Amino acid sequence: MESLKNENEKHSLNIPSFFPLAPFNFPAMVPLWMFPLACVAGNSFVLKPSEKTPGASMMLADLATKAGLPEGVLSIVHGGKQTVDNICRHPTVKAISFVGSNQAGEYIHEEGSRHGKRVQANLGAKNHACLLPDAGREATVNAIVGAAFGAAGQRCMALSTLVAVGETKDWIQDIVEGGKKLKVGCGFDAGVDVGPLISTQSQERVFSIIDKAVKDGAQIPLDGRANGKVDGYPHGNFVHPTVLSNVSTDNIAYREEIFGPVLVCTEPVDTLDDAIQLINANPYGNGVALFTASGAAARKFTHEIHAGQVGINVPIPVPLPMFSFTGNKASIRGDFNFYGPRGVHFYTQLKTVTTNWPIDDSTSLGGVIMPQMGKNT
Amino acid sequence: MESLKNENEKHSLNIPSFFPLAPFNFPAMVPLWMFPLACVAGNSFVLKPSEKTPGASMMLADLATKAGLPEGVLSIVHGGKQTVDNICRHPTVKAISFVGSNQAGEYIHEEGSRHGKRVQANLGAKNHACLLPDAGREATVNAIVGAAFGAAGQRCMALSTLVAVGETKDWIQDIVEGGKKLKVGCGFDAGVDVGPLISTQSQERVFSIIDKAVKDGAQIPLDGRANGKVDGYPHGNFVHPTVLSNVSTDNIAYREEIFGPVLVCTEPVDTLDDAIQLINANPYGNGVALFTASGAAARKFTHEIHAGQVGINVPIPVPLPMFSFTGNKASIRGDFNFYGPRGVHFYTQLKTVTTNWPIDDSTSLGGVIMPQMGKNT
Amino acid sequence: MESLKNENEKHSLNIPSFFPLAPFNFPAMVPLWMFPLACVAGNSFVLKPSEKTPGASMMLADLATKAGLPEGVLSIVHGGKQTVDNICRHPTVKAISFVGSNQAGEYIHEEGSRHGKRVQANLGAKNHACLLPDAGREATVNAIVGAAFGAAGQRCMALSTLVAVGETKDWIQDIVEGGKKLKVGCGFDAGVDVGPLISTQSQERVFSIIDKAVKDGAQIPLDGRANGKVDGYPHGNFVHPTVLSNVSTDNIAYREEIFGPVLVCTEPVDTLDDAIQLINANPYGNGVALFTASGAAARKFTHEIHAGQVGINVPIPVPLPMFSFTGNKASIRGDFNFYGPRGVHFYTQLKTVTTNWPIDDSTSLGGVIMPQMGKNT
Amino acid sequence: MESLKNENEKHSLNIPSFFPLAPFNFPAMVPLWMFPLACVAGNSFVLKPSEKTPGASMMLADLATKAGLPEGVLSIVHGGKQTVDNICRHPTVKAISFVGSNQAGEYIHEEGSRHGKRVQANLGAKNHACLLPDAGREATVNAIVGAAFGAAGQRCMALSTLVAVGETKDWIQDIVEGGKKLKVGCGFDAGVDVGPLISTQSQERVFSIIDKAVKDGAQIPLDGRANGKVDGYPHGNFVHPTVLSNVSTDNIAYREEIFGPVLVCTEPVDTLDDAIQLINANPYGNGVALFTASGAAARKFTHEIHAGQVGINVPIPVPLPMFSFTGNKASIRGDFNFYGPRGVHFYTQLKTVTTNWPIDDSTSLGGVIMPQMGKNT
Repeated sequence: MESLKNENEKHSLNIPSFFPLAPFNFPAMVPLWMFPLACVAGNSFVLKPSEKTPGASMMLADLATKAGLPEGVLSIVHGGKQTVDNICRHPTVKAISFVGSNQAGEYIHEEGSRHGKRVQANLGAKNHACLLPDAGREATVNAIVGAAFGAAGQRCMALSTLVAVGETKDWIQDIVEGGKKLKVGCGFDAGVDVGPLISTQSQERVFSIIDKAVKDGAQIPLDGRANGKVDGYPHGNFVHPTVLSNVSTDNIAYREEIFGPVLVCTEPVDTLDDAIQLINANPYGNGVALFTASGAAARKFTHEIHAGQVGINVPIPVPLPMFSFTGNKASIRGDFNFYGPRGVHFYTQLKTVTTNWPIDDSTSLGGVIMPQMGKNT
Repeated sequence: MESLKNENEKHSLNIPSFFPLAPFNFPAMVPLWMFPLACVAGNSFVLKPSEKTPGASMMLADLATKAGLPEGVLSIVHGGKQTVDNICRHPTVKAISFVGSNQAGEYIHEEGSRHGKRVQANLGAKNHACLLPDAGREATVNAIVGAAFGAAGQRCMALSTLVAVGETKDWIQDIVEGGKKLKVGCGFDAGVDVGPLISTQSQERVFSIIDKAVKDGAQIPLDGRANGKVDGYPHGNFVHPTVLSNVSTDNIAYREEIFGPVLVCTEPVDTLDDAIQLINANPYGNGVALFTASGAAARKFTHEIHAGQVGINVPIPVPLPMFSFTGNKASIRGDFNFYGPRGVHFYTQLKTVTTNWPIDDSTSLGGVIMPQMGKNT
Repeated sequence: MESLKNENEKHSLNIPSFFPLAPFNFPAMVPLWMFPLACVAGNSFVLKPSEKTPGASMMLADLATKAGLPEGVLSIVHGGKQTVDNICRHPTVKAISFVGSNQAGEYIHEEGSRHGKRVQANLGAKNHACLLPDAGREATVNAIVGAAFGAAGQRCMALSTLVAVGETKDWIQDIVEGGKKLKVGCGFDAGVDVGPLISTQSQERVFSIIDKAVKDGAQIPLDGRANGKVDGYPHGNFVHPTVLSNVSTDNIAYREEIFGPVLVCTEPVDTLDDAIQLINANPYGNGVALFTASGAAARKFTHEIHAGQVGINVPIPVPLPMFSFTGNKASIRGDFNFYGPRGVHFYTQLKTVTTNWPIDDSTSLGGVIMPQMGKNT
Repeated sequence: MESLKNENEKHSLNIPSFFPLAPFNFPAMVPLWMFPLACVAGNSFVLKPSEKTPGASMMLADLATKAGLPEGVLSIVHGGKQTVDNICRHPTVKAISFVGSNQAGEYIHEEGSRHGKRVQANLGAKNHACLLPDAGREATVNAIVGAAFGAAGQRCMALSTLVAVGETKDWIQDIVEGGKKLKVGCGFDAGVDVGPLISTQSQERVFSIIDKAVKDGAQIPLDGRANGKVDGYPHGNFVHPTVLSNVSTDNIAYREEIFGPVLVCTEPVDTLDDAIQLINANPYGNGVALFTASGAAARKFTHEIHAGQVGINVPIPVPLPMFSFTGNKASIRGDFNFYGPRGVHFYTQLKTVTTNWPIDDSTSLGGVIMPQMGKNT
């Protein structure tokens, strides 16, 4: 087609409707990853919050309305499994964003995809910290205490696993001391560092994992089960900071995402290479952190590790909004990551436009074009 | 964390292994959408060609080897359903590219996703041409004759459906005349315009669809069934150019992808708006073309139409390699499109790296950071 | 250097200080092209407004201070030639932005460059409208009346020159009628369309150009000199809408930027090609507009015309803020255009960083590397 | 203009003609920075090589012709000052690329700009290496020996100045020993590390600078003047590797670009901050290198240093082709850097296109639009 001047353009257009499912632990942040981008891209948005924490979504919707979001653009529904099924099957739903557990997320990805929806699902995690001896000891220990026990370990980016390289195995004792000093209690009370878990079932599950872990050979230099209840909150679902050490990779505490204030220290390793091998063998790939002063170690780790979020001396490396929250391995289903450039891609639909404007339409293209079998060009 | 200077970087890294499945009709082009990008991005690549056209893949692999591709980077396997299942389930396969039928593609997307693979699947199509009266009549008719009957209609971007706006319904007769002039025969013989279908089953299926379409009310101003066999090829799976007109949208000829040299003309419409509405209601969204001289009509159509590839006076708007081949609606599963920027994304894995290099590691970060509950910053 | 793993990064860093010079006609808009970007990029900024319109800058600085801009980041100086020289020579000034006349801008570009400053200077203009017969006549005429006489023609993007193709030469009479209907007066009075010029000198200069133009052969179907003074403003520097037609390209009215409400119509041409040739021969290249319904004509014009801003059915095609205000030919000095991506480039300094982190610094790179004469790699 | 749907597009179009001026020391590389990009962007290109090294350009042109470059696209002229003046003033020349000395480059930038040409000029340099004690000593010393004395120091990226921090002042002796081992001779002879200078004048100028430097207080632990001539080349313009130490910043050896195999070591400093301050005070800003194992030091240096090319453990940080060769301070005139993205910008001309396609041109835009004085929208 030599006589044609073609031009390609790309257009990103909106998906008419879309449906997110938000988790209990970040009931405001996670919806804010989603609906502002989705609505700015021209979609209407229906939000189904966790049935455990429906309040934050209602407040966000109220604020959005006050800020002038047109009626009908953002809606909220509450519900359980039947609601989820309706979302996955309804013909006007074009896309589904989900953050939560593996089981729910894999079901939604499969059911939604089968019904032609675009689905992104952020799932489970097991985030490792790798310690090198040249890191600043005090700063590193403080960072890990905060990242392992903060939010009572109930976040997908909690730094819940520690791989000590060489002499840094001695730093675990510092972490134990740091964990002991944290005050457990009601999150609304002054001076409290570690609040309760979301439910009694969660508390019981965490205790059960610790029990089994110790029974299967893990050491427990800091035992959060043994600590007393919190005064004034006899029914609080508290778990005190816990450190398990010398945990083998087949121990339940290593295999499962605990979602409580429990730091799992693997058997120490001798080299950075060993640590990278151990971490890469884990099925999850959400976040990871290396503590070091060395530019060379940082580059090697960054290049070789398989994880979506990599922190160098940053314990919880959640990307800034101009980047995307990237998952890897079993921590994600769907290709477009949350927020940032990939989030914009998720909430828009790509078109590619090719135009031909012959200068004189009255002069025909001259003969039938049969671009087959290599005989026409 | 006010004392931290953070920097985010994005790294695109390779997927260790990956598996495409190529269709019969473009046995060279479609693998070339895939393995060059995949291999340059650092992946090894296993290609399973259609069992109907395995030869082109073997030639491509031979050329790649001669060009210096290291041994083991590109492999070819042949096989059927069991091979596909193995691909979808094998742990070292990280991603699957597929181009072909809806049934196979949806199965592969579901089965591959369930086993944690990234899957992109280009599926069926029903590409509409929309004619406006201000288009150049002769050039437009020629373009449609070529795009509807070329490659015997056996391409996912065949322009197989026509929506005539206003007086352009009279142009259908010109297309009929154009179709009559095409020479049907063996593709290797000189002067042949339209070759045979891929198999006797395909031929029979196309005849069957035409039969039912006419029975259900479609007119047939050009009947490719009535034409004689091709001399010298008594067993050739030939279908001669066929035009169906006044085809309602519930007619089987409109609902199914025919994959033969059959142009389906819908009932004529009065306005561009009517045409857009008709086209957008079709479940497929692969390609679409508008023929017009008007900049205003082109912009309106481009903005409002739901299709991955939009051509303005371009009958088969396959994007150039710096763009991506974009699908829409039921024509695609998976988020990353083929080749171009989205193809690079498909064959690489995103990492986001956040680094903190405190100038003096001996000065600790000062106290435990507990970024929970709004009490710490 | 085969053993090295290198990585390049680009850093855009700020210029410590910077100095704009703003014109009289957009005393608020033009500084707003500059200082918000410059300050956000980390620079301090000194603004020298036109001595004819210093007030708007003072208001902007006041608003910026109220909005929280730190003290010392935005300063304003007033002055004439000596101030300009100081700006061009002072060692802490790193960059100069200027919008205004050719004479001043060329001097500032030369003097600033000689002293090592980065300089961008938007200079004179002569913006052509090209009319094709397929354009909507009424809409086009209205657009030109507004763009030629609005702001009394005192803007660098005024559509001050008209090239009629074919029968559109008859549309000039419509423009004359449109110009007659405009109300000239004080800009603060209700219903006024065309205000006064900036000074008596400007008024006299415009009258003088019209006089010479007519003397040298131009026709004057609408004579703004002959119109009466404006009641109540005996000393106003008014020029009423004026249309000159059949103006040859060597007439002073075509060669000079008039900066008054005077539309210069060239001798009509027969084809779009003729119009493009005429416009491209003009030394200026600020803006240009084509009026047409044809996608093909729009593409041809867009590709072949030499101008920074191209409008298709847009009389004053000032780019939106995500694009840059681009000049061409004698309408600009300096490479980085104003605002948009190029504006960000102007106010930042590029660094390219290449890093090598050998995994073991104790193992040397092995031998002296002498990358000369082709003997080392 | 509420009824208008506008779209902006950016077009990068070519400059019709263009003229580079290449230096003697990289007679092939520097033209290859230029003409491939320029010609691919659609320009014709006239190359004027240094009158000292005209041969490489002739070979390049010959190769380009053999490769199929159309006749007239690449031309070569030879000449001196008069030729340069013609280039700077000829109306069909649209842009000039220059790499060479400050004096010539500043003249060309000024003269070319005055005649409306786009000019980019890469000028002088004084590249500093900064040594930190945690760097690998042997690797660092080897890197500096190669980068300071390689190509006999005749390159704009030679690492000609050394700033030793703390105890690394003792490493200078290692560099002296390394320099002693280099073999000086004819570049075509086996085993030669350091060739002659380009001319007798250059040799005499370097000797003269060394003489003055020592007279003004510099120490000279390695004296390249004292070394014997090179056997077999009695008239060779050789200068043997020379190290000057304790050179104050007002010494001629620090102030001038020597362009010979002379390493100038400043008075040692105590901290990285001191080193950064010293380097930033230098008027040139071409390249700089830091040697360290510390990620934190690398980040601080990268952020705070003012230089176009920054190397971390890379002695000659010339950017790869996907980046641009960036200058800073007095090392560059003109805004667009050489090669890479900025090189593409230099050889193309930006247009911004705004289009309005009213759906029905017969419905006018309704009334004259007078976008002035805030009364119309």
